[in-house]
Amino acid sequence: MNAKMTSQVSVSKIHGTHCDQASDTIAVEEPLEILLQPYGEQPEAVSITMRTPGDDLALAAGFLWGEGVLTSTDDIDASRSYVIHATNRVCIALADGASGNTHQLKRHFYTTSSCGICGKASLDLIHQKSQFTIQSDEPAFRLSVIYSLSESVRLKQAVFEETGGLHAAALFDTAGDLIDLKEDVGRHNAVDKLIGRHALDGKLPLADKLLFLSGRASFELIQKAKMAGIPVVAAVGAPSSLAVELACDAGITLIGFLRDGRFNVYAGSQRILMN
Amino acid sequence: MNAKMTSQVSVSKIHGTHCDQASDTIAVEEPLEILLQPYGEQPEAVSITMRTPGDDLALAAGFLWGEGVLTSTDDIDASRSYVIHATNRVCIALADGASGNTHQLKRHFYTTSSCGICGKASLDLIHQKSQFTIQSDEPAFRLSVIYSLSESVRLKQAVFEETGGLHAAALFDTAGDLIDLKEDVGRHNAVDKLIGRHALDGKLPLADKLLFLSGRASFELIQKAKMAGIPVVAAVGAPSSLAVELACDAGITLIGFLRDGRFNVYAGSQRILMN
Repeated sequence: MNAKMTSQVSVSKIHGTHCDQASDTIAVEEPLEILLQPYGEQPEAVSITMRTPGDDLALAAGFLWGEGVLTSTDDIDASRSYVIHATNRVCIALADGASGNTHQLKRHFYTTSSCGICGKASLDLIHQKSQFTIQSDEPAFRLSVIYSLSESVRLKQAVFEETGGLHAAALFDTAGDLIDLKEDVGRHNAVDKLIGRHALDGKLPLADKLLFLSGRASFELIQKAKMAGIPVVAAVGAPSSLAVELACDAGITLIGFLRDGRFNVYAGSQRILMN
Repeated sequence: MNAKMTSQVSVSKIHGTHCDQASDTIAVEEPLEILLQPYGEQPEAVSITMRTPGDDLALAAGFLWGEGVLTSTDDIDASRSYVIHATNRVCIALADGASGNTHQLKRHFYTTSSCGICGKASLDLIHQKSQFTIQSDEPAFRLSVIYSLSESVRLKQAVFEETGGLHAAALFDTAGDLIDLKEDVGRHNAVDKLIGRHALDGKLPLADKLLFLSGRASFELIQKAKMAGIPVVAAVGAPSSLAVELACDAGITLIGFLRDGRFNVYAGSQRILMN
């Protein structure tokens, strides 16, 4: 656990009519300015998100991947990318020869946001085109694996347990092993951190993985999964109508209400092995 | 309840190792393009948000209020403002003589978002200046009133009960009477709808009201409360560090974890009447 992810505050804890002064652990929320530096040019601010500190480079890389700015993991020059913690800034440097169309990027960037949706200046910009094609019938996940996900996350998700204030996103393989887990006050940030980490490590697409979400499944989160080539999304909470539509269109299996030994499959049930 | 707020989908309901085909009600999520029309000029697109249909005019007005674009309820020309449901567009028309600084607005708008935070091009733009000063010690809320809020919301919040997919925001007076309640897939939208409705009705500031949130309290939501002059915010979920800081700075009472007959007060405890 990163120490900067939580902070202590003094609170009045009221129970019935009793009041106690106590200390409480809360999730840290701070702004992060994301900059992009095309090769041989100056960095330019492209977005600001409110996030929980930690994995800032991964968050920025994942955000840029989800926006379709990075289309190859080779686009990132990791050695020239950097984080300035004191000023809450992160810069992703593009590699020499990276195919980023900066003219189009600029036009797009200044009208978009870290939410992936909000702030876009045209409805046409909402749908992103993915680099990856999701296979129609693999991988498959056994029931026993699906039912084990929440407990695996709970064991690992230290900060959420402590503050109750963080969303978690986690990646699992078909054996049910937890590959990676990220936490953030913003659920879109948790997913960006997860996908961005794999983009930085050159490990996209995530074609044989399952994305677990501790909360609800919105359009935006399914789109991020699509952009990373993730074939299965399992959420503890409810899906939205547009999340279901996009999952159907993209060939993504969408599980909702995964809790208490049950779940609903809203799309792609062929990937669930019932025995 | 607005019929367009939910839709029916067919799902595979899996319980243990049993699978049933069934129909499920889910919350509708659709994009909404927000336009602003200065008096005597053409409408311009300023933002897009993913929202649950219904109260679109209020949503747009509340968004613009929270961004500091509207600074008087007289700024809105309701008769020239309109919603086009078929294309998911809403336009707020500024009144003749409305003081909106459109030059600054444009610069600001195209770098901001409906989240109120994401997409801003500079960290300086995160903090908004409110038109209203929040009084330091009133209004006061009795414990019995605070404990009654969740049940009042539950009785009224039909859609959430049905879909589990919507956030609720509600306004209460000091007697504990529910003044208004809005639901949306995005919690910032629910708050925008609530505040925007009162902006359209010429009823800002909300100086003697309490804002109830069904989820967590982030910086963004406290800022929206501050912009509307709301002195007390009570959330069922956890607050973030920056939400607590802003509540302290703005003189807002911030209650978190309001459930199961208990709650925490993170700021402004002088407004809680313990007897």
